[in-house]
Amino acid sequence: MKRVAIVGVGHSKFGVRPDINLPELAFEAAKPAFEDANLTPKDIDFLSVGTAGGWYEEFLPAVVVSEYLGLSGKGLVRCEAACASGSAAVATAFHTIASGQCDVAMAVGVEKMSEVDTLTGVELIGRAGYYTWEFHNFGMTFPGYYALHATQHMKKYGTTEEQLGEVAVKNHKYGSMNPNAHLQRAIQLDDVLSSRMVAWPLKLYDCCPMSDGAAALILASEEKAKSLTDSPVWIEAIGMSSDTANVSKRVEYSSLLATLIASKNAFKQANVGPDQIDVADVHDCFTIAELLAYEDLGFCKKGEAGKMIDEGQTEIGGKIPVNVDGGLKAKGHPIGATGVSMMVGLTRQLRKQGGKVQAPIKNGVALAHNVGGTGHYCYVTILRS
Amino acid sequence: MKRVAIVGVGHSKFGVRPDINLPELAFEAAKPAFEDANLTPKDIDFLSVGTAGGWYEEFLPAVVVSEYLGLSGKGLVRCEAACASGSAAVATAFHTIASGQCDVAMAVGVEKMSEVDTLTGVELIGRAGYYTWEFHNFGMTFPGYYALHATQHMKKYGTTEEQLGEVAVKNHKYGSMNPNAHLQRAIQLDDVLSSRMVAWPLKLYDCCPMSDGAAALILASEEKAKSLTDSPVWIEAIGMSSDTANVSKRVEYSSLLATLIASKNAFKQANVGPDQIDVADVHDCFTIAELLAYEDLGFCKKGEAGKMIDEGQTEIGGKIPVNVDGGLKAKGHPIGATGVSMMVGLTRQLRKQGGKVQAPIKNGVALAHNVGGTGHYCYVTILRS
Repeated sequence: MKRVAIVGVGHSKFGVRPDINLPELAFEAAKPAFEDANLTPKDIDFLSVGTAGGWYEEFLPAVVVSEYLGLSGKGLVRCEAACASGSAAVATAFHTIASGQCDVAMAVGVEKMSEVDTLTGVELIGRAGYYTWEFHNFGMTFPGYYALHATQHMKKYGTTEEQLGEVAVKNHKYGSMNPNAHLQRAIQLDDVLSSRMVAWPLKLYDCCPMSDGAAALILASEEKAKSLTDSPVWIEAIGMSSDTANVSKRVEYSSLLATLIASKNAFKQANVGPDQIDVADVHDCFTIAELLAYEDLGFCKKGEAGKMIDEGQTEIGGKIPVNVDGGLKAKGHPIGATGVSMMVGLTRQLRKQGGKVQAPIKNGVALAHNVGGTGHYCYVTILRS
Repeated sequence: MKRVAIVGVGHSKFGVRPDINLPELAFEAAKPAFEDANLTPKDIDFLSVGTAGGWYEEFLPAVVVSEYLGLSGKGLVRCEAACASGSAAVATAFHTIASGQCDVAMAVGVEKMSEVDTLTGVELIGRAGYYTWEFHNFGMTFPGYYALHATQHMKKYGTTEEQLGEVAVKNHKYGSMNPNAHLQRAIQLDDVLSSRMVAWPLKLYDCCPMSDGAAALILASEEKAKSLTDSPVWIEAIGMSSDTANVSKRVEYSSLLATLIASKNAFKQANVGPDQIDVADVHDCFTIAELLAYEDLGFCKKGEAGKMIDEGQTEIGGKIPVNVDGGLKAKGHPIGATGVSMMVGLTRQLRKQGGKVQAPIKNGVALAHNVGGTGHYCYVTILRS
């Protein structure tokens, strides 16, 4: 496979953004990416736009984004993989270059969720399973699904509500240091435990917010990348997997099978193991999701994620810093932007541009773990400086 | 670039299909594709699903399709490029194999448009431009957009309503020979000219129907393809382009710029010219769109499409048979399925399995031209036996 590098990154402010429309939000991320790569729209051959949609009126979101970025005329596609749409857009741009189809591509993830009220948002996200069975007939919601994961994990491994809460505390701490984060307030464990119950054992502070936001990457072929930058960050591997639409058909709730398959494939392609990852972003749409990821990605043994968070092993200074950008939990989760945002942050980490939240870089390897739905999709992307 | 071949094709009945839900419709196309390739779901590494959505309730259509096809666990993405979503799904599967990421991939295009009433459908399709400006503020609809193309072409080149009508007559003739077509009735020119006015000069019979339907392709790497079949059909080139979201920003209405760019790129990649194409499917969502395609793809000189249809040059026996499966006009246009459906038909043509509508195959080269929106997207795919 031809090598492909990240040569430019950009990130919008995440949050509630009534000040800006969908293509403007994409532009807020794309402009710094162009500047970072020292490229202009005419240099781009192909654009993939990761966005789930449903909360905004534009029916052809990729087209309005493309026009606003000055990319009309270029190859274009919209990628949707639920909450992993951003990673899917990166994968699509990656494969387009890796196949030799083009030399320079842009992946933009963008979502504007605040155009609908919270209840409509909850409905739309609740439909992100098997609509007919699990939403329409049984009224499942997203916090409800992840509560199933949490309760099974608690029963099997003794994981506690406090340990779930510690994930939120860690990610809010890092979110408070990220000027682009949606939630920038550091919190204490008591804040989590005393917050409003959503779906037992998940409370308000166990849940990520619905956010508006965008992130952008510019990718280039090996030859092009070397002509553009002295610090390319290579996409070493992309592992992709999926799982049943019906969550009720899963055999196990204390793991996400899609994460197990996607990470196994990614580690194999990149020829690295979990112990060699310097820094990771994992999909913490709910606190339990981050604990599942520790185990499913092999950062710790099965059942030991609670201990890992207890010991601070996923903070800077620990075994493997996780979500030092605040994660979905505090940075926010504009669905289509999330996967791209992870890779923006990790690229900066590998370039040692992490500032106050720079993790120690020993092997020059980072991992982005992006889940769509409740494990319906998983993309695991491994980067190397 | 690594070579990629089509090794299996399948097609559902197109039409109004209240008898079947979205994943079942996809299955109706995927099952014969598996049989054609002599493969089972376990042999597939990656699935791309082309579907625009908006008319059915499922929020994660690719996931429900994947589960129903027995492909849970595989790499998965949904591709949207408006009415070119099917071609985008094929391109995505193609690049995933051509990059070396995997060996066997499936591209399924599926749409179920009949779940909404016609007016809602017209609204949803009308939003497939720049919603804020051109739908919300000016109330543009799709027939309205294509009427602009038609009137400019009539003014510049003397194209007549009769010539538009002849496209419908030809495509209904071939649709009447395609058991999977939505509209299977041959019509006369008078039927078109006397049909209800929609947006002058486009009448009811100048417009394709809104359809339910699905089509599927199985693609394989060169090595795998050669082990599977003696009659692989190679994807020689994919040209991709786009244009402004605002149709009002276009400088020219008698051509689609996206078609000009995408076809130029595809011809260059495949190292063939329009004269070497044995048979083509072009995007005839309205009769004028087929005439624009003749010229933009170089099948005739600019302004001579009317003459080309007058002379029967795009029928079997003419210079280049076009839409011998009935085209969007008669076969139907389930948005996400259309691009894949074109390639199913052309693969059968190149394999000389066209039956009553077999075109003469001299060079073994076929072309699929799939437009998204009103030229917002264009994918041109060149196949070779």
